[in-house]
Amino acid sequence: MKLASKLLAAAALSAALISPAFAADKVYKLKLAETWPSNFPIFGDATKNMVAMAEKMSNGRLKITIDSKNKHKAALGIFDMVRAGQYDMGHSASYYWKGKDANTLFFTTMPFGMTAPEQYGWFYYGDGMELMKEVYDKHGILSFPGGNTGNQMGGWFQKEINSVDDLKGLKMRIPGFAGEVLAKLGAKPTNIPAGELYTSLERRTIDALEWVGPSLDLRMGFHKIAPYYYTGWHEPATELQFMINKRAWNKLPEDLQEILRVAMRTAAYDMYAQSYHASGENWAKMKTEYPDIKVKTFPKDVINAMRKANDELIAERAAKDPMAKKIIDSQAAYLKKVRVWSEISDNAYLNSQAAE
Amino acid sequence: MKLASKLLAAAALSAALISPAFAADKVYKLKLAETWPSNFPIFGDATKNMVAMAEKMSNGRLKITIDSKNKHKAALGIFDMVRAGQYDMGHSASYYWKGKDANTLFFTTMPFGMTAPEQYGWFYYGDGMELMKEVYDKHGILSFPGGNTGNQMGGWFQKEINSVDDLKGLKMRIPGFAGEVLAKLGAKPTNIPAGELYTSLERRTIDALEWVGPSLDLRMGFHKIAPYYYTGWHEPATELQFMINKRAWNKLPEDLQEILRVAMRTAAYDMYAQSYHASGENWAKMKTEYPDIKVKTFPKDVINAMRKANDELIAERAAKDPMAKKIIDSQAAYLKKVRVWSEISDNAYLNSQAAE
Repeated sequence: MKLASKLLAAAALSAALISPAFAADKVYKLKLAETWPSNFPIFGDATKNMVAMAEKMSNGRLKITIDSKNKHKAALGIFDMVRAGQYDMGHSASYYWKGKDANTLFFTTMPFGMTAPEQYGWFYYGDGMELMKEVYDKHGILSFPGGNTGNQMGGWFQKEINSVDDLKGLKMRIPGFAGEVLAKLGAKPTNIPAGELYTSLERRTIDALEWVGPSLDLRMGFHKIAPYYYTGWHEPATELQFMINKRAWNKLPEDLQEILRVAMRTAAYDMYAQSYHASGENWAKMKTEYPDIKVKTFPKDVINAMRKANDELIAERAAKDPMAKKIIDSQAAYLKKVRVWSEISDNAYLNSQAAE
Repeated sequence: MKLASKLLAAAALSAALISPAFAADKVYKLKLAETWPSNFPIFGDATKNMVAMAEKMSNGRLKITIDSKNKHKAALGIFDMVRAGQYDMGHSASYYWKGKDANTLFFTTMPFGMTAPEQYGWFYYGDGMELMKEVYDKHGILSFPGGNTGNQMGGWFQKEINSVDDLKGLKMRIPGFAGEVLAKLGAKPTNIPAGELYTSLERRTIDALEWVGPSLDLRMGFHKIAPYYYTGWHEPATELQFMINKRAWNKLPEDLQEILRVAMRTAAYDMYAQSYHASGENWAKMKTEYPDIKVKTFPKDVINAMRKANDELIAERAAKDPMAKKIIDSQAAYLKKVRVWSEISDNAYLNSQAAE
């Protein structure tokens, strides 16, 4: 080797060792698994939006591949796959993991719980993020809000619900905690795969079902076969979830961690705005095509009975598990304070407008 | 110069010319002027939050200094200073510039207009961002949402407003378009500097004033001297504004442009959550210290009269200016669609809860 070449090699080596620019050029490849099928609207858009922001902000130093459930075939296996490091990241919903850890239930939405702006207040300026960290830490996972659907509708019903008696024996597709609440009042909650829902409701195998709201219900077509669309009580602010395996997170330099954190946060907020937009658009379409759809709110005594059943179930959880109690108490205290604000701000405003 | 030194210098030069890592290391310094005084809560936090995210995500390649009005002494000169390039960026509110360009009025909030989630839908998934770009392009400025206060309260009143007659001769601090609406109904809107507001209300120089809402009203102390707190109609979703001089923007590489865009977007959304949080907290404090504060909503005929006056003023603007008409029509069409969703989602939910 000639002297000149040696010197050039030495210069390059020393640059590689001392210049942060060289370290900063390293590309970090992450794999993300989402619960949704390929090209699922809104939920899938949140994941794509997050990845696009992260890649562009990092100038290509972050490369994130998204596998939908069509690829990994394990829609409800995201938690396990991220915990094991099989995937670095996930996009799903925290309440799907209540069988793995009962306290993951509280970080999506709760019946009679907070609305989206209330819940974002709790997550980011109340105790929400810290409590979620406490629950997920032991699983080696970091969890972040992943996009809000807004208030979910109470569902599509073949018959009107005029009293608590009308709930008795009611066959309704309604999964999760809300299903437990209705079961306590004598309803028969069932879970049915998405692909069979339309036929089940049409053939009266079930009397009612809840899905999301106009944003995603339009494509399911329920408005063509059920006359009553009830307003919500059971999922007032469904927040999806981004997850990251902690070991994968710790390997990232600080600037890329911040890029990911901010990309996830923005994608979550953006999904709330997109859901709001799509709900307005799609409800207008439904109403134009099927002007006879009737929007109903459950009567006061039905709401009160559901709420009582809900409070009892919540109290049972709190009595059994100190961490559950800590989260439930935090949410209740926050809701009590912030709800008064919701009532005297947007709610009073909308009521004063509607009243004319 | 020795051969070895020459070769090293040549190697360094060639690296600087060809390696993107070297280009990527360049530090871009930006100066931002904000309308607010130093350490102003919430509004000032949004600016600091944006800068912290941008600097951390760019690993220090973006350096943004914030000058408050204590420094630049031109709270309402931000538009001119950013247009001229004296500052690269600004944090302010679009409706302050209606004297410079009447159509900047529409990008903050409008009386009887959209709520915050409705307006974010319009900005990001409707025509809002494009229309704002069209208005600001001719000034060489890029404008972005800069943080939402949430629904602003209608203000503090010494006397109850029971009819439109009670507005006649009412001396009220209420600036801007809402002041024009009240003037049309016989009120006497005035503008008074912030520092003199408390004394003016206490000594009855004015009968009423509006400021923001509990989030920022608490520190002003109005709740100690006025018994009635009216719910809002005139600023349902006040969105602050980040501005960037276009020449400064165009000098940034694409990754830093994306970092800035996302940092501004997140800081704006975050401020909405922070305002919501602070409103709940501060309202609880006011109500504990002064339990006799009465929250009132203007009677239906007063709301209707204000709305009629507002619609007439809006129609005058639309008739005079095609661009104003374009924006007004876009907002009205969007509101019509999305408001039905607001009514059957959070509004129905909150009403069903309040009813028990």
